[in-house]
Amino acid sequence: MVRIGIDLGATNIAVGVVTDDGTILHKVEAPTLASRPWQPVVADMIALTRRALSEAGFTLDDLRSIGVGVPGTAIGGVVVFCTNLGWHDVPLERTFREAIDKPLYIDNDANVAGLAEAMAGVSAGAPNSVFLTLGTGLGGGIIINKRIYTGAHGVGGELGHLTFIADGEMCTCGKRGCLERYASATGMIRQGGEAIRTHPHSALAKAAGQDPANLTAKLIVDQARAGDPTAMMVFDRYVHYLAQGINSIISFIDPDMIVLGGGVSKAGAFLLDAVRLALTNYIFFRTLPYASIELASLGNDAGIIGAAMLGE
Amino acid sequence: MVRIGIDLGATNIAVGVVTDDGTILHKVEAPTLASRPWQPVVADMIALTRRALSEAGFTLDDLRSIGVGVPGTAIGGVVVFCTNLGWHDVPLERTFREAIDKPLYIDNDANVAGLAEAMAGVSAGAPNSVFLTLGTGLGGGIIINKRIYTGAHGVGGELGHLTFIADGEMCTCGKRGCLERYASATGMIRQGGEAIRTHPHSALAKAAGQDPANLTAKLIVDQARAGDPTAMMVFDRYVHYLAQGINSIISFIDPDMIVLGGGVSKAGAFLLDAVRLALTNYIFFRTLPYASIELASLGNDAGIIGAAMLGE
Repeated sequence: MVRIGIDLGATNIAVGVVTDDGTILHKVEAPTLASRPWQPVVADMIALTRRALSEAGFTLDDLRSIGVGVPGTAIGGVVVFCTNLGWHDVPLERTFREAIDKPLYIDNDANVAGLAEAMAGVSAGAPNSVFLTLGTGLGGGIIINKRIYTGAHGVGGELGHLTFIADGEMCTCGKRGCLERYASATGMIRQGGEAIRTHPHSALAKAAGQDPANLTAKLIVDQARAGDPTAMMVFDRYVHYLAQGINSIISFIDPDMIVLGGGVSKAGAFLLDAVRLALTNYIFFRTLPYASIELASLGNDAGIIGAAMLGE
Repeated sequence: MVRIGIDLGATNIAVGVVTDDGTILHKVEAPTLASRPWQPVVADMIALTRRALSEAGFTLDDLRSIGVGVPGTAIGGVVVFCTNLGWHDVPLERTFREAIDKPLYIDNDANVAGLAEAMAGVSAGAPNSVFLTLGTGLGGGIIINKRIYTGAHGVGGELGHLTFIADGEMCTCGKRGCLERYASATGMIRQGGEAIRTHPHSALAKAAGQDPANLTAKLIVDQARAGDPTAMMVFDRYVHYLAQGINSIISFIDPDMIVLGGGVSKAGAFLLDAVRLALTNYIFFRTLPYASIELASLGNDAGIIGAAMLGE
């Protein structure tokens, strides 16, 4: 028996045939074309599922379950919100099962990536872990006893929207001062934009052609790594914020491990070493053991593997 | 069979004989005299246990277990930190069992109060709840599936030390901007002190005799309830902060219920109505159900009842 894992992103749909232990046997992809209505997108997901199975030499009889990771929130088989896709109350489970009648599981993409790392990645040895996607936003996936924890109403794990600087920067969610405004790639880029305006002669400003629109987290990290004082200031400030956010997670649910994923985590050991060091300034019980901080290990495959693992 | 619940406070030691369903049959108290070394304090706890049992007509043979709630952190039978009592690595379980050899359970006082409410109080119908003590500090007790959740290393639930305004007010823990600095009684009093300096003709300033040292949360709430604009401003700001802290708890672990206890919660419906209303401004999934916010119902007895409930 095999599983299907579907990583539904705003750009691509990736579908993989996955073994029970989380190995991807075969993978197919197609563009999401997210401006379409949801019906043709789901039709493509179904067609890709059939194609992936067939190309890998399996039939529907070999299929145990299908899992889907979505960049939004799903409750009871329905995708309630999916801002990047413009989805609202999409009956994904019902629609899918009308075509392929197999158990279908849906969850948020950060939860799914966290589950993948907990089953087959860096947090495989940790019963309780928290996965952070440091990208355009800041997503959180809470794993307790190797299961995704989304709370009593399915709306937990929104770690990007913890209040971090009350009455601070306006967030896309309508509140002010959410952690996401400070500890996501977007947060780093905003700080970088302010820095190059006040430091126009810095290597960072020159690398960005004096235009904040050219800034990326990678550019800032690369310039910081190369020793540009302005980029280092921006990076240090980012780490100062991220480490405090991680400290809040430890103070709240004290996991075995916190896993850093998403675009910013590609900074690798340069980020990890800085975060681990900064964290020692904030930790509450300084003499007691606390969560280890690690980099995600599965990369883009986490979305497929974790989705496949959603089933029993 | 009965249980003993011990509420070890900085001021008093309260010991109760408690039934399996959380009813207190008999209660005895004595001053803690916290400036003493820990040994005579524990000796008094043991003596009070024997006295409570005997006065209630029971012997040690009737005793199932003993539970102790401490204003600090306990791991593996040892009170690791207990700042108000000056305790550090006190071998409470071993010392107690040398005198009375019954199963002994120790946990933090906010956890214990949260468990009491979850077993015999306002959150009895809620599998997952979070208890907040709004007092000198801000303590948190996380209950998942009717059990206290303290995380992988026993250091979770420190909700007062979530970063709430990064780089904000200095906290007693050594960090800046902890939620406790803004949403505890101490936080309300600090804001009140600033307000009476800038509004010396306010009813609040007069009630406090122009001296911030005379301010209490009760005085501020009473003056706000009576309509003093300065006190109302302080109270509204407090609610603005507390509601955002509660919103962070919902975004993080999405419990069934959040229970407000501690001194500030004595403001009753005046506080509760204001917090519930303010929360609607911050909630992330506005159209989905979320945790109900309620007042603690067991009052001071929560410490004894919850401690007794720590056993199986």
